[in-house]
Amino acid sequence: MTKSTIPSDKVRFFSGSSNPALAASIAAELGVPLDNTQITRFSNDNLYIQLGATVRYRRVYIVQSLSQPVNEHLMELLMMLDIARGAAAAEVHAIIPYYSFARSDKKDAPRISITARLVADLLKTAGATHVMSMIFHSPQVHGFFSLPTDPLSSWIVLKQYLEAHDLSDGILVTPDMGQAKSAARFANVLRLPIAAGNKERISDTEVAIRGLVGNQVRGHKRALI
Amino acid sequence: MTKSTIPSDKVRFFSGSSNPALAASIAAELGVPLDNTQITRFSNDNLYIQLGATVRYRRVYIVQSLSQPVNEHLMELLMMLDIARGAAAAEVHAIIPYYSFARSDKKDAPRISITARLVADLLKTAGATHVMSMIFHSPQVHGFFSLPTDPLSSWIVLKQYLEAHDLSDGILVTPDMGQAKSAARFANVLRLPIAAGNKERISDTEVAIRGLVGNQVRGHKRALI
Amino acid sequence: MTKSTIPSDKVRFFSGSSNPALAASIAAELGVPLDNTQITRFSNDNLYIQLGATVRYRRVYIVQSLSQPVNEHLMELLMMLDIARGAAAAEVHAIIPYYSFARSDKKDAPRISITARLVADLLKTAGATHVMSMIFHSPQVHGFFSLPTDPLSSWIVLKQYLEAHDLSDGILVTPDMGQAKSAARFANVLRLPIAAGNKERISDTEVAIRGLVGNQVRGHKRALI
Amino acid sequence: MTKSTIPSDKVRFFSGSSNPALAASIAAELGVPLDNTQITRFSNDNLYIQLGATVRYRRVYIVQSLSQPVNEHLMELLMMLDIARGAAAAEVHAIIPYYSFARSDKKDAPRISITARLVADLLKTAGATHVMSMIFHSPQVHGFFSLPTDPLSSWIVLKQYLEAHDLSDGILVTPDMGQAKSAARFANVLRLPIAAGNKERISDTEVAIRGLVGNQVRGHKRALI
Amino acid sequence: MTKSTIPSDKVRFFSGSSNPALAASIAAELGVPLDNTQITRFSNDNLYIQLGATVRYRRVYIVQSLSQPVNEHLMELLMMLDIARGAAAAEVHAIIPYYSFARSDKKDAPRISITARLVADLLKTAGATHVMSMIFHSPQVHGFFSLPTDPLSSWIVLKQYLEAHDLSDGILVTPDMGQAKSAARFANVLRLPIAAGNKERISDTEVAIRGLVGNQVRGHKRALI
Amino acid sequence: MTKSTIPSDKVRFFSGSSNPALAASIAAELGVPLDNTQITRFSNDNLYIQLGATVRYRRVYIVQSLSQPVNEHLMELLMMLDIARGAAAAEVHAIIPYYSFARSDKKDAPRISITARLVADLLKTAGATHVMSMIFHSPQVHGFFSLPTDPLSSWIVLKQYLEAHDLSDGILVTPDMGQAKSAARFANVLRLPIAAGNKERISDTEVAIRGLVGNQVRGHKRALI
Repeated sequence: MTKSTIPSDKVRFFSGSSNPALAASIAAELGVPLDNTQITRFSNDNLYIQLGATVRYRRVYIVQSLSQPVNEHLMELLMMLDIARGAAAAEVHAIIPYYSFARSDKKDAPRISITARLVADLLKTAGATHVMSMIFHSPQVHGFFSLPTDPLSSWIVLKQYLEAHDLSDGILVTPDMGQAKSAARFANVLRLPIAAGNKERISDTEVAIRGLVGNQVRGHKRALI
Repeated sequence: MTKSTIPSDKVRFFSGSSNPALAASIAAELGVPLDNTQITRFSNDNLYIQLGATVRYRRVYIVQSLSQPVNEHLMELLMMLDIARGAAAAEVHAIIPYYSFARSDKKDAPRISITARLVADLLKTAGATHVMSMIFHSPQVHGFFSLPTDPLSSWIVLKQYLEAHDLSDGILVTPDMGQAKSAARFANVLRLPIAAGNKERISDTEVAIRGLVGNQVRGHKRALI
Repeated sequence: MTKSTIPSDKVRFFSGSSNPALAASIAAELGVPLDNTQITRFSNDNLYIQLGATVRYRRVYIVQSLSQPVNEHLMELLMMLDIARGAAAAEVHAIIPYYSFARSDKKDAPRISITARLVADLLKTAGATHVMSMIFHSPQVHGFFSLPTDPLSSWIVLKQYLEAHDLSDGILVTPDMGQAKSAARFANVLRLPIAAGNKERISDTEVAIRGLVGNQVRGHKRALI
Repeated sequence: MTKSTIPSDKVRFFSGSSNPALAASIAAELGVPLDNTQITRFSNDNLYIQLGATVRYRRVYIVQSLSQPVNEHLMELLMMLDIARGAAAAEVHAIIPYYSFARSDKKDAPRISITARLVADLLKTAGATHVMSMIFHSPQVHGFFSLPTDPLSSWIVLKQYLEAHDLSDGILVTPDMGQAKSAARFANVLRLPIAAGNKERISDTEVAIRGLVGNQVRGHKRALI
Repeated sequence: MTKSTIPSDKVRFFSGSSNPALAASIAAELGVPLDNTQITRFSNDNLYIQLGATVRYRRVYIVQSLSQPVNEHLMELLMMLDIARGAAAAEVHAIIPYYSFARSDKKDAPRISITARLVADLLKTAGATHVMSMIFHSPQVHGFFSLPTDPLSSWIVLKQYLEAHDLSDGILVTPDMGQAKSAARFANVLRLPIAAGNKERISDTEVAIRGLVGNQVRGHKRALI
Repeated sequence: MTKSTIPSDKVRFFSGSSNPALAASIAAELGVPLDNTQITRFSNDNLYIQLGATVRYRRVYIVQSLSQPVNEHLMELLMMLDIARGAAAAEVHAIIPYYSFARSDKKDAPRISITARLVADLLKTAGATHVMSMIFHSPQVHGFFSLPTDPLSSWIVLKQYLEAHDLSDGILVTPDMGQAKSAARFANVLRLPIAAGNKERISDTEVAIRGLVGNQVRGHKRALI
C-alpha cells in the first residue's frame, strides 16, 4: 500500500491510554498528527478527559484497545466518544484493535450477559458512528454492532513476513478444528500443507493439545502455529 | 416508617461488589432475601457475572455505589442491568447510593465530557427502568436522566439522630453559601440558628474556610457542620 | 411437566399460516384457546390480516415459523406483531420455532447482509417484546436480539423418547466437529459413547461425511445421528 | 429537463429484481452506471444478496418497486438497504416507484394493520435515509414516513405527451369524486373541460361507474380517463 | 353502558385547562375522583405545572383538548405527560377530545409541516403511552401515531339522542361527498334516506353548498345535517 | 472578528417571529441572505408555516428566541425544524438566543417538570441537529441536550464596549453570590475590583438586595452591575 496523506485539517486523531505507541504509529503511517489527549483523575477516582484539538465538522479517529485494565480503558473510550460527539464532530470512528469483550458472545449459562453486544450498544450510545477492530473471536460478533463495523485481518502482514522467509518443508498448524477453515485458506495462499491440533480447554487459562490431525506433520522441519 | 414486607416471590434483590453490607441491610429492612450474585473475572480482565435467581417477570433491584474503583463498579452495574433486562425482568431498578459522576455536570472547559449525563444514558442503554440515588451534587443532575429517578435525602435520618440529643446552645454551620438555602430549611426544622462559612476550593482535594458569616456563632457551644 | 392452565382471559394465542397444527398443539398443551386469525390478500398481492379477539391489556402469543415461503411468513409475523402492539396488547411474544435467518449470521464476503440481525431488529420495530425460538444455528445469534429472547432446546423431548428405548450397544454420532461439544454433553446424559463425522459442505444442499472419528464406532449396533 | 451527469465515483446505483429495465433507464438518464446486484436463494428459501460495488462514503440509490410478489420484493429492498448502511454508505436512498402498501392506510376494522406505516418504519430500521415514490394512494401516507420523503408526480410526463396531440373536443374524465380536485387542476393546465364518474367499488377487483357528472360530456369526441 | 367503577387507588385522573368541566364529567362517569392540577405561569411566561396526587405505579389519564389557544394547551399537555412519566406512572393515557392538528395531515405545498405527525411524535417524546381522541379529520391520521391510539366515535350518543325523537319524514344530509360513505352507514342504522350537498371551500372559514344530490330531499320535513 | 462570508447557496437562514430584526442582523453579519418564512394561522388557531427557499442538502439555520408568548414561539420553532428535516436539509441548526425554559432545571417540588430537559428532547424530536443559545441559567442545563450544543457568551461584546469607556474608579457589582465566580473572572479581565450583593428573592418578580459584600465599594464612583 502506498502511503496516502489525509489532509490533516479535516482529520483529528486521538489515542486513549491503552497503547499510545500503536496510535502514534498509525497516525504516522497515515501522515496525520496525533492530537493531544489529557487524561487525569479526580480524587473520587472519576476520569477527567480533555481532547486537545477542535473537532467541529472534523472526521475524528479514536484509538483504544480494550486491554487491561479493561474497564478503565472502556470508560476512557466512552468518554472520548462522548466528547467528540458533543463537540460537533462530523464522524466519530472508534478504532479498537483488541475488542476483548468479543469472547463474551453467547449465553451458555442462564442469567449472564452477552457483554460483547452490551458494549457494542454502549459505544453507539456514547457517540461512535463507525467501529474498526481486529477480526473478532467469532465472526458472528460483527452482527452485534448496529453501526458500520470493519473487522480487520492481519493476514496481509503475516503473509508479507512469511514470504520473506524460507518456507520449504514448512507446515501450518492450527490449534483446533474451530479455526481450521480460515487456516486452510491461509495455508492455501502460502502453498503450505496444514495440520490441526485437538485442543481441549482445561480452564480459563490452560489448554492441552492432544495430538495432531493431518498426515503431513511428520517430516516437516518448520511448523507455523 | 413501619417495616413493610414485600412478597419475596415478586422481588429480586441483588448487590454489586461495591458495598454488599449496605445492600444486605436494605434487603433486611425491606424483609426480602438478598439474592446471590457471582462476580468473577476472565484472565483477560473481562468481568463474568451471573445473577443467582430467576428474574423473569420480577421487579429487580440492583444496589451498587459508584465508589472506588469507579469504572469497575460501573461496568458491574451495567452488566447486571443488562442481565436482568435480557432475562425478562418486569422492572429493573438501579439503586446507586453514591453517584460519583454527578460532579462532572457541566462544561467549564472545551472538549470535556458531561460525564454525569453520559452515564445516565449508559444506564438506560444497559436496561435500567428506574434510578434511585442520594441527592446529587447539583439538583440539575436529576434532569440528566430520562428514566424516572428519585434522589433520596438523608435528612430524616439525621433529624432523628439529632433530636435524640441535647441541641440547646447548638448552631448549624454550612461550609459555603452554595448550600445555604437547604441548610436554612434544615436549621428551621431543628429550630437552630445558622451560620455559613466562606469556603474556597484550593484544589481537587483541599478547601479553606475563611471566616463565618452569621451573628450568632459566638456564644454557641455546639456547632453542627 | 404438569399441565398448567393459564387464565384464558389474560392470554391471546394466535397462529400465522406457517404451521397452524403446531400452534394448535401448543395452545392445547397450555390449556388456552387458539384465537382466530384471518389472513387474506388484496389483488395487488398485499396481505390483509385481522386478529380475531380483543388483545387490549392481554399477554399475546403469536406462533409463526420462518419456513417456506420465508418472506411471506415473515411479513405475516411482522403484521401480526404490529396489530397486537397497535391494539394495546400488554406484551407481545413472538414464538418462532424455526428462525431460518439464523444461518445468515456473519459477513464472510463483502457487502452482504447479516440478515439474522436485520430480522431481529425488524421484529422489534414491528412490536415484539419477547422472542422464543428453537436454539439457533450458532449460539451467538442470541446476541443479535435486543429483546429478551429464549432459545429453546428439544433435548428434554429427545431424551424422553430415547430413554423409552433400548440403547445398549448404541452410540451417538455427530456429523461434524462443530457440534461435538453439545453432542458430548447429550451423550453423557444418555450414558452413550460418541463419535464424530468429518462433514464437508460441498454446496448449499450437499454434504459429504468422510470417515468417523472415535474408537468406539465398530461393534455398536445402533448409531444415533 | 437537461441531462445532468452525476460524478459516478460519488454515486452507486443498484436495482432489486422487481423492475431492472426501469432501473437501467433511470441510471442511463442520470448518466451513472447501474451497479451489479447478485440475488440468489439458499435451499431454505432465504435470500442471499451481494452488492457489486464499494459503497463506503458513497450516495447509494436503490430502485425497487413493491410489485408482485410483494413480500419478496420488500425483503430484497430491506436487505439491500441494510447492506448499504452496514458497508458505511454516506446516504441510502430508496426509490420505490410503486409503494403498494399505501392502500393499507387506515383502520376501518378493529385489529388490522396500517401496513403503510409499518413498512415505512421497517425501511427506516433497515437503513434508508431518504425515500422517493410515485404519489401515494392518499396524500396523508406521506406523513407515515419519518424520513425525508418525496412523492413524485407523473403529470409533467403526461402533459408533455398530451400536448403533442390534438386535444380539441377532448374532455378529461375522472372515475370518481375522490380525485376530482387534482383532476380539475390538471384539466385546467391542459385547458380541457372535466367530468367525473360515480364510481362504486363492488369488490377488491371490480368497480362500476354509474353515470357521469358534468354537462360537457355529450358532444366531446375524445375522453381522457 | 352501565357505570363501572375503577378502583381509584390504581387510577389518577387529571385535567389540563382546556375543558375542566368535560374532564370532571368523564371522571364522574367513571367513578374516579378528578385529581388536582396546579397550573401557573412565571413572569417570563413559562408554564409551571404541578400534579396534585402521587402517580407512582398508577394508570394516569390526562384530559386536554387542543382547542384555542392551541399552543398553550399543547404545551400544558406535554408538560403533564412529562411529569407523569418522570414520577414513575405505570401508564400515561392522553385523552385529546379535539386533536385540532389533524387537519395538517399532508403536504400540498412544498416546505410545510405535516403537523399532525409532528405532534404525534412530540406526545410520545413527552411520555404518553396511549392516545384517545375523537375520530380524526381523515382516517389516515391514525397511522401518524406509533403509540396505541383509539379514535372514538360519537355515533352511539347521536343515535341514542335521535332515536328518542320522531324521525318519520326525516332525511340525513351530509355536506359533501367526502363524508358520504360514513353518512350512508349512519343513515342505514337510523333507517333514514340520505342526501349529499356539493360543498365548496371558498376560504379557511367559508364554504358554500351548491345544491343537493339525492332524489329524496323534496317532501321530507326534517333534515338532519 | 473579521467578517467571513459563507457561500450562500450552501446555507439557508430563516427567522421565526420572535425577533426578526435580530435574525436579520446576524444574517447580515454573516453575509448570507435572510430567507423568507411565511407564518399564518388557520381559523382553529393552528399555525401554518412555509419556508421560502429550498433546503435540500443545505445547512439550515433557524433563529428563534423563546420569548413571550413562549409557547407560540416554541411551536413555531418546532414546526420550522420539522419542515427543514422533512425537506432533506443536511443540517438543522437551532439558534435560540433566549432559552427561557432554562430556569425550570430541577425538581424542588414533587410532580413538576424539568421543562428545560423536556424542551431539549422536543427540539431533537422535531429535527434539530445542533443548538446554539446564550449561556444558560445554570451551566448544568448544557447536559440536558443530547445534541451538540454551544452556549454562547456575550462577554466579548461587553468587554469591547466597556474598554471603550473610562473605567477608572469603577467597580463591578454582582447581585448575588451565585454569580460571584464568573463575575470575578470578568472583573479580572477588566482589571476592576468587585463587590457582591446579598440578593433575596421575594417572589417570582421581586428581589431585594440587602447590603453589599466587599471592602472596595465605598469611594468608587462608577458601579457596573
